[in-house]
Order: sequence, then structure tokens, then C-alpha cells
Amino acid sequence: MTTRNDDAPGPVSPRVRVRRKADRGSYDPALVRQILDEALMCRVAFVDDGQPYVLPTLHTRIDDLLYFHGSQRNRMLERMLGKPICVEATVVTSLVLGRSVMENSMNYRSVVVLGTAHEITERQEKLEAMHALVERIAPGRIPELRPLTDAELNSTRVLAVPLEECSAKARTGPPMDRAGDYDLDVWAGEIPLSVITGVPVPDPQLKPGIEPREALLTWRRDGI
Amino acid sequence: MTTRNDDAPGPVSPRVRVRRKADRGSYDPALVRQILDEALMCRVAFVDDGQPYVLPTLHTRIDDLLYFHGSQRNRMLERMLGKPICVEATVVTSLVLGRSVMENSMNYRSVVVLGTAHEITERQEKLEAMHALVERIAPGRIPELRPLTDAELNSTRVLAVPLEECSAKARTGPPMDRAGDYDLDVWAGEIPLSVITGVPVPDPQLKPGIEPREALLTWRRDGI
Repeated sequence: MTTRNDDAPGPVSPRVRVRRKADRGSYDPALVRQILDEALMCRVAFVDDGQPYVLPTLHTRIDDLLYFHGSQRNRMLERMLGKPICVEATVVTSLVLGRSVMENSMNYRSVVVLGTAHEITERQEKLEAMHALVERIAPGRIPELRPLTDAELNSTRVLAVPLEECSAKARTGPPMDRAGDYDLDVWAGEIPLSVITGVPVPDPQLKPGIEPREALLTWRRDGI
Repeated sequence: MTTRNDDAPGPVSPRVRVRRKADRGSYDPALVRQILDEALMCRVAFVDDGQPYVLPTLHTRIDDLLYFHGSQRNRMLERMLGKPICVEATVVTSLVLGRSVMENSMNYRSVVVLGTAHEITERQEKLEAMHALVERIAPGRIPELRPLTDAELNSTRVLAVPLEECSAKARTGPPMDRAGDYDLDVWAGEIPLSVITGVPVPDPQLKPGIEPREALLTWRRDGI
């Protein structure tokens, strides 16, 4: 298996080589990390009795490890542990609208990671991963929260996959219409997509007089 | 295999039964269809030489068939054709922020479909699927576009998976904090997430004087 967790270009595993539209592929570890950090969540695929399954999950990256968590009774974690898995994370940046039916698609940045997940049992590493998972969806929130208890930490399973065999793929720029289509009277271009937050819905049991932090109200991401 | 494409409740395949937090599960065909229609894109998982892969793709649903498309040379379509696959589509509706590290998650609606994809070769069905795929990302656009040619249609592969073995799962509502945590001076509740469009980026080769339709500028979706 080709190691992809250094910053030097190196040989690429044929299993993650981008074949279709290969000019959109990249094996730059910095780009892989960036996309994983940008994507709000990821998908994990695993095989059980010959049947593939894919489930959405929150993830976080620390150095060259990608972490997931769940309850000790979480079936997805149980079924993926120690087996080959595939993780995919994508940020869709814009709709790409061309002048023909063929040329309507999306711009995106996407990562695929192949590997095997192992369980994290060391207390400090579990704690750091759990905190990082929260900070990714709500930056700055950890210091406000009631800390994890040992019982909570023990009831949580944390798995990690090394970023060894992985690749990135991206599409950017305008539609690529056929030569003759550029004369058509059809608007063409990119429509950027962003995620915004709406009006917060306070917990019905919220103590009176507590307002959400400004950072939670102005949260915005380019790409979805 | 349990058939799930009627509107009557029926027995549920054990492979798609929601086990973890089973109260969040549903096998209502109307809900499954609604979530598939809401989700901008989906993920398809397949197995190749024992290794699972998952890739993001656009989809569209017509009646109880879920369609994907790509080039005739598309490797994902080639590798998934006739084999067991898993399709997953998720709409994340809000961040759910509780008072402890354990209670920070997301509200979502999610669908998992198991099945086998078959190729659509009938011209009219291919055409309808291709049009529906564009209309889903850019409603009202098909009448503006240069129609598909036979050569384009022939160069495109359309696959379909029946919505037979599938289930939905959803989380709604506020965080479920531990009894003692409700006294903490921490804001808790839900932060709704939406997708909005940004300022359109015209194709550099756009003919002068063509403006995008209003519907493209005001496009918005609740949930991401």
C-alpha cells in the first residue's frame, strides 16, 4: 500500500488513482487535509456479508488521522472496525450551468480515503478527538460546556483511520460547452452555494437570559 | 427481500432496519421519497475486490426508481452495474447544541437504499431521467437549454435502482441533556442550516446582455 501521509509527491496507489477526468485528480496531502477540514461531515462505507453500506457521520482530522465517534453500542463503528473501509468527504462549491442538457453539473472538492479503522483507547487522545469533533461544528464552544465525565468517555467509542491511501478530486471554473453552443441566448455560468445559519431555536428548557454567542449566529461556509 | 415500494406498511428487511436509536427510524415510502427529493446529491457505495468505495453523485427519483447518470466510460457506473450497492442521501437540518460535550450533534433526515442497479436503454426513459437530473439542481432550466442530441444520449449511461429495500432515519428537536445539565448557564438549542446561492459568476464567454433568471438567484433550501 502506498503511503500518502508525507508532503512529498510519491507513487500513488492504483486504488485511489483518479481515472475518470484524471486532470481533476490530486494526491497533494495538504489539499486532502484541507478538504477534510472544510467538509462538515463525511460518509463511511463498509462491507458486511458482501453487501456495501454507507452512512453519514461527523469526522475530525488531527494530523494524519481521521476520527469518528459513537456510542459503544454503535453498529456502524462495530461493523467497520478492523475491516477495509472507504471514507468520502465532499464540498460542493457551485452549480455549473451550461447551455445544453449535458453541461449542467457542479463544482466541488472531494476526498476519498481507503484504509482500516482502529480503536482509540488512550484517554487523552479520545478526549482530544471528542473536543475536536464539537469544535468543528461549533467553533469556540468547548470552553463553555460541562466537561466530559469518565463514564461518558468510557461509553463512547472513538475510531481512527490513517490518511495513507487517499486522493482528492476537484472541478472548478465555468461550464465547458460545445463550440456551437456559445452562440445560444442562454445564461451560463456558476452559481456559488453557501451554508448559512438561520434564527436559533432555543431549547424549551433554556434558562432565561442566556443568549447564543455571536459566533453561532454569523456562522457561514462557502460551499455545502 | 422485502418490498418497500408500496404505500402500505409491511415487513421490513432486517438489512435496512434501523437498530441504533430505533425510534428515529421509518419505513414510510412517502418519507423515503421526500428525503431523496430534498437531498441535492447522494452517495453510492459499491464493492470491488473486497474493498468498499463510496462516491458522491447527482440523483433523481421518478416514481420508485432512483436514477444516476454518467459517461459511458464512467468507472463508478461500470463497477456498480449489476452488483449490490448502497445509496445514502441525507439532509442536515440543524446543529443541535447541548450543554455538555456529549450533546452536540445535528438534526437530519437520511435515507439508505440497498439494491442492484440496472441500465436504462430505452430512449424516452433515459431522456426523462436526464431532464429530471438537471431540473433538480436548476428548476425550470430544461426549456431554455439546447436539447440533447442522439449522440449525447448514446454517450451517456443511465442506471436505476428500485426503491424496494430502504429506510429513513431522522433526528429532530432540541438537545437531550442530562437532568443536572439544564441548570448550567450555557446556551442550548438548535441552529438551523440552509443553503443559499451567491452572486452568479457569468461564463467568461457569455453573450452580452443575457441575465440569469430570477429563480436562479433566489434559490434556497432549508437543510444542507
